[in-house]
Amino acid sequence: MSSNPENFYAVIPAGGIGSRLWPLSRAAAPKFLHDLTGSGQTLLQDTWDRLLPVAGERIMVVTGDIHSDAVLEQLPDLSKDNLVLEPSPRDSSAAIALAAAILNQRQPGVIIGSFAADHVVLDQKKFEEALSEAIEVAATGKIVTIGIKPTEPSVAFGYIRKGQRLGSSACEFLEFVQKPDIQTARKYVESEEYFWNAGMFIAKAEIILEILSQTQPAMYQGVIEIAQSWDTPQRKSVMDRIWPTLTKIAIDYSVAEPAAKAGRVAVVPAKFEWHDVGDFAAISELQAQGQRGQLSVLGSARVLTDSSSGIIVSDTGRLVALIGLEDVIVVDTADALLVTSKQHAQKVKSLVDSLRQSGHSELL
Amino acid sequence: MSSNPENFYAVIPAGGIGSRLWPLSRAAAPKFLHDLTGSGQTLLQDTWDRLLPVAGERIMVVTGDIHSDAVLEQLPDLSKDNLVLEPSPRDSSAAIALAAAILNQRQPGVIIGSFAADHVVLDQKKFEEALSEAIEVAATGKIVTIGIKPTEPSVAFGYIRKGQRLGSSACEFLEFVQKPDIQTARKYVESEEYFWNAGMFIAKAEIILEILSQTQPAMYQGVIEIAQSWDTPQRKSVMDRIWPTLTKIAIDYSVAEPAAKAGRVAVVPAKFEWHDVGDFAAISELQAQGQRGQLSVLGSARVLTDSSSGIIVSDTGRLVALIGLEDVIVVDTADALLVTSKQHAQKVKSLVDSLRQSGHSELL
Repeated sequence: MSSNPENFYAVIPAGGIGSRLWPLSRAAAPKFLHDLTGSGQTLLQDTWDRLLPVAGERIMVVTGDIHSDAVLEQLPDLSKDNLVLEPSPRDSSAAIALAAAILNQRQPGVIIGSFAADHVVLDQKKFEEALSEAIEVAATGKIVTIGIKPTEPSVAFGYIRKGQRLGSSACEFLEFVQKPDIQTARKYVESEEYFWNAGMFIAKAEIILEILSQTQPAMYQGVIEIAQSWDTPQRKSVMDRIWPTLTKIAIDYSVAEPAAKAGRVAVVPAKFEWHDVGDFAAISELQAQGQRGQLSVLGSARVLTDSSSGIIVSDTGRLVALIGLEDVIVVDTADALLVTSKQHAQKVKSLVDSLRQSGHSELL
Repeated sequence: MSSNPENFYAVIPAGGIGSRLWPLSRAAAPKFLHDLTGSGQTLLQDTWDRLLPVAGERIMVVTGDIHSDAVLEQLPDLSKDNLVLEPSPRDSSAAIALAAAILNQRQPGVIIGSFAADHVVLDQKKFEEALSEAIEVAATGKIVTIGIKPTEPSVAFGYIRKGQRLGSSACEFLEFVQKPDIQTARKYVESEEYFWNAGMFIAKAEIILEILSQTQPAMYQGVIEIAQSWDTPQRKSVMDRIWPTLTKIAIDYSVAEPAAKAGRVAVVPAKFEWHDVGDFAAISELQAQGQRGQLSVLGSARVLTDSSSGIIVSDTGRLVALIGLEDVIVVDTADALLVTSKQHAQKVKSLVDSLRQSGHSELL
């Protein structure tokens, strides 16, 4: 087993619009470019800082062309060589596989770890411990995921079912389970056999590519060809030619699930507090932590209220007055205002869908 | 009895900020200067049009100095001679008594009628009939109020208790009752002896002044002195000297109530639909009329919602998205946003009070 950190590279796929966080999160300024925790840093900056102690500056960011300036501004230490710009979004398989191909070409045998740009981890030490263990297990040839011990029967996340113990705390990975209903989620939590799937994968780049070559041979060929041209003057022309042809598929389906069926995936259980801040209700709960009976305020809003719950997000500098309403979500931006309740926070996505369908793309 | 309309002058005291309609209604742009009904006209313009058939252009407007331009713009037919500008707000007694004194000096024996600038009357014909009858009764020396037959046990209005029949439909006026609780209001409505007090008073100007001379002798002296200088070059200096000394008191207490105790008030019952649009819940109900199950929208808002009740008021042109909330009030203005529910609409006033106390006068 090798745990040489020089052999580890972190990859941050910074994609997705975060429709459930509209109108704050937009195509031009998605979720990961915002400070949603009140930390004073954006989620992307928090992700960078979280990986730094283990990966050093061996961190690659994969993001959309249009976010190039914002990402470089937010991450001044990111080397331009480690910024992969996608001409269009092609889901997580293409993003992570291309990163794997480029890094494996530059440094054969490299172990990579993929971490979403828009998640929140509250216990840095436990995260580092889990990541270090995951790197050790990945060095044995496994694809490793970090499973989060559930603190409640959430229906917002996918789950992972663990199997036999493999190492110090790593276990065999039996299967992915998509978002369950609440009864099923309760059973999962009680059984102690299930973890939240936080989408963190750590593996030798060559193993990811090997599995991809079996499940998505065209994509495999494509990313290898792009990677071969990457550090040459042909990068742009090859990228522009091949990228749009790559199949849109999540890495869960192209790599992790097939690998799990072949017994090649392990899970490292972790107890750190993790949030995917998927909607405003999640942000509100994250903000209110340990301060029950308080309304959360994010941004520059001046707020006048008698409410003891809910969240106000505002970047307009206007006064926001909220009277007699609990668990309300108010998101106040220059060109759009959202008013809903925590209970309906997930419905924001369908609202964004209707905006798209009705041609209001200027608001997306 | 004389019902010579040439002898009748309408007075519109256009004062009050309409705190319950903040942040739409402001000190600089109060309620009466807004279109709150979606009629395409402001409440002040609606009031003018309502009085025109009976009063012709014999209509005097009493309003704050700072509203002079807005009022003249909204009422192009208002003669400047009939615009009384108050250097500061001194409540309804001073406003109406000064109008009475000026008009009685110009035209001794004139009958005046006072009508709030910010009420809504939906049946013009019934209004005119009630007003004509009130003028006839006023010519006999009574102070006449138009009582509105209640359509529900409202706790938002004061009531009037009627006594014996006086004329065709006019009755003796027994007493004012301040806003009752809901049980009392129900009894009032069932008894058919009570009317809503819509603050409409019709009387000979000299009778109003006579009663004032007994209850508020200093104010009486003051308004007479101002009136004597009114159509002279001394108007401004006399006004500036005396106006700030006048007692702030509602006409109900200085004139109507004492007159009622002396048996000098009559009430003309009327069945027209009347609204004081005192808060956003009232506007919402007015808007939704006959269209239950529909959200009301006032102003230029683009609205996306699944709600079937409540009201959105917006003059910012922003998209307002409202999801999963019923009976919600959203008022969206350039520098302030209010979110509350119909149930809490009356609390907006105390919010404005706290803004005042905390020194946010720029938002009032």
